[in-house]
Parts: sequence; structure tokens; C-alpha cells
Amino acid sequence: MKIAELSRRAGVPIPTIKFYIREGMLPRGERTGRNQAAYSEAHVERLGLIGTLQQVGLSLAAIKQALQAMDSTQDDTGDFMAIAVGALAPPSPARDDVADGETEARAEALLRTMARQRDWSIDEECAAWHAAVRACAVVLDAWPSAFTEPDLERYAAVAEQMAAFELPETWNPAASRAEALKYVVLGTVLFEPLILALRRLAHVDRGEKLRARRARASHPSRP
Amino acid sequence: MKIAELSRRAGVPIPTIKFYIREGMLPRGERTGRNQAAYSEAHVERLGLIGTLQQVGLSLAAIKQALQAMDSTQDDTGDFMAIAVGALAPPSPARDDVADGETEARAEALLRTMARQRDWSIDEECAAWHAAVRACAVVLDAWPSAFTEPDLERYAAVAEQMAAFELPETWNPAASRAEALKYVVLGTVLFEPLILALRRLAHVDRGEKLRARRARASHPSRP
Repeated sequence: MKIAELSRRAGVPIPTIKFYIREGMLPRGERTGRNQAAYSEAHVERLGLIGTLQQVGLSLAAIKQALQAMDSTQDDTGDFMAIAVGALAPPSPARDDVADGETEARAEALLRTMARQRDWSIDEECAAWHAAVRACAVVLDAWPSAFTEPDLERYAAVAEQMAAFELPETWNPAASRAEALKYVVLGTVLFEPLILALRRLAHVDRGEKLRARRARASHPSRP
Repeated sequence: MKIAELSRRAGVPIPTIKFYIREGMLPRGERTGRNQAAYSEAHVERLGLIGTLQQVGLSLAAIKQALQAMDSTQDDTGDFMAIAVGALAPPSPARDDVADGETEARAEALLRTMARQRDWSIDEECAAWHAAVRACAVVLDAWPSAFTEPDLERYAAVAEQMAAFELPETWNPAASRAEALKYVVLGTVLFEPLILALRRLAHVDRGEKLRARRARASHPSRP
């Protein structure tokens, strides 16, 4: 198909398509004439993938990085997905005030200890690491002495548990790499609101159960 | 102290203080003259609490509800905190497109089944429930047939686990109710970015470990 049809099919303006080609995010079409190129279904799919990654909050630089990793790595899994997830724009912080340098350093130290304890391989350059440091600093700022290594450990254990069922050993990174990338990135982002909402429901339930238990304890039934 | 000093100490404009009093969110001062009232440290604290709850995203209506519950409930825990957490503004969704009515109905059915299975007490009027339904619908929309009851169960189990260590049985809702309310609301909101960031780090680590395992499996060392 010609570029006009590709644009129509993918819902992406022609200048944007040309930009993606220049940036190496989309392969060139097959040359069919002096100013003509033919595009295939693979181009439509790739534009769809770029659109999806943008929609869930990846920056253009992150998408470029993820696609390059996907196109260039040799093995069937892992690498490019780790790069994609690591590069995801961090969830917005609950508070605007940034913790001071000292608190950030404490947060970093806590996270490093945790990663060592749990044998996590960590890339301290990735966005996920920076987001974790910042989020941990906000918590330390609110509870300067009450949040310590064992507390962080419990959250890390829960995160590890989620990752284990979300990316099971038997999981085959699938027919296509593009599908695998989409699965991991969408899975990471789309489940976040669900996880947070369930935690809130669990808090409500927990509060209710503790209240009921205390009420029973203070008014024991008599024989 | 006079209202001008209260305003200065709490960093809240006088008209806003008057508004809070009219709305029943702040007690009146003790009358000391025809147009004079005296305010106490309790007023400064209460304004601080209102400010904190606003900062972490509670709507004015939710704050009012939480404060009324805190002021009026008889028992020492549970109720007013459940109301506060339930009323928290839901985390912003990853996608703008709203799922259709049918998908929402499926999400609701899934969540009700889960709540019954796990014996969660649920208030279907609270913001947390609506957020959960919406978040679950977004997931169902992305994976129409792949996300089922057992999947939701696994996330619910993780949420329950977090709630259990976040609100331990031994936890004493503290010296003051205001402190307890602040603890629960801040705890719910400030930990969210940390939980999400740790999950991303766990994904990166998991991807890396699966990759390494596959590499070992395809190149076994020879004797």
C-alpha cells in the first residue's frame, strides 16, 4: 500500500509516519519508484504498537528504546521487555514536595539493601528505579523513623509475588515479539489502578473486621 | 487565640476558616465577646488535618464525611477509617476510554464473586468500589477472555496480605483519632507509588531471571 493508505489505515498523519521512519522506529517501505514506496501489514501493526505504548504513558524516547531493543536483541525474551518496563514513565507522585537530598540518599540505601537481600537485578539508570527512590523518599519523609528495612521487605515480597504470577515460568513470550512487548507494557500499566483499588477495598474490609473483633472482645457473650 | 492568629498559624485564610466552621468541619471558637471568639491548639491541629487530607487527594465532601464519622462514631477504630479510605478519590485510570456497560457489568460480577469468596465486607456505594469496577473493566476490555476469576483472586490475595501488615491486629488506633485518621489516609495514598514502583522493579528482575534461565536451558554446559 502507499503511504496515504497506511496513514488512513493506522490513523496516523503522514508527517508523523515520516518522522517515525527518520527516527528508526518504523522500517522504510519497499521502494517502488523514484518517490514511491510500498508499505505492508507489518507497518500498520508497528504503528498500532507505537500508538498503544504512547497511550499508556511511555515517552517517545522510551518507545524508541523499547523498539530498538525488541528489534535488535537476539534472544526470545527478557531483555527488551525489561527495558520497556524499566523505561515506563513512573506513576505520578501523591505529593508535589520533593524530599531533600538526605532523605533520597536514605531511600536509595534502603532499596539497595532490599535488592541485595532479595537478589534482584537492578538497573539504577532505569525509570522504575528512580520512581522507587522517589516514592520511598516520600514515605520516609512522612514517617521519618517508622519506615525501616523490614517494612520495605514486606512490600518487595508482595511485588515479587505479583511478578511471579504475572510472568509465569511457563509463559511463552509468544508468536510475535510485538505481542510480547504489548503484553508486558499493557499488563504493567493497566493493572495498576486495579491493584490500588483492591488494596483500598481490602483496607475497608480490614478496618471493619478489626472493629468487629474489638466490639466482640469488649462485650463478651455471657453464658 | 483570635481568628487572625489561627489563620496565620495554620496558613489558612480567614474566609476559608469561616467556611469550614459553617460546614461543620471545624468547631466554633469559644465566644469571648460580641464579635470575638477564642481558638485553641485543637483548631490549629484540625486545620492541619484538613490540609493534609486535601493534599493527598480527598475531595471536600469526602473530608467532611470522614471528619463527621471521626467526630461522631463511638468506638475507637474501624468505622471512620473505613469511611475515609472508601471515600478517597480513586487513582486516575491509565486510559481515558471508558468500557461499555456490558464490560462494567462483567467487572462488577467478577468483583462480587471475589468479595463473597474472600468474605470481604464491601460497601458498593464507596469510591473504592467504583474505582475497582472501573479498573477491572479496563483490564477486561484489554483481555476480553484472558482475565478471569482466578486471576482477580490472586490480586485480591495480595491486597489482603498488604492490608493485614498495614493494619496489624496489634495496631492501636492511637492516642488521638485525628492521628489514626491521618495514619490510615496518608498510609493508603503515600504508599501507592512505592508499591507500583516496586512491582515494576520486580518485573524487570523477573524478566532478567527468566531470560537467564532460558539461556542456560538452551546452552547446557557439557561435561
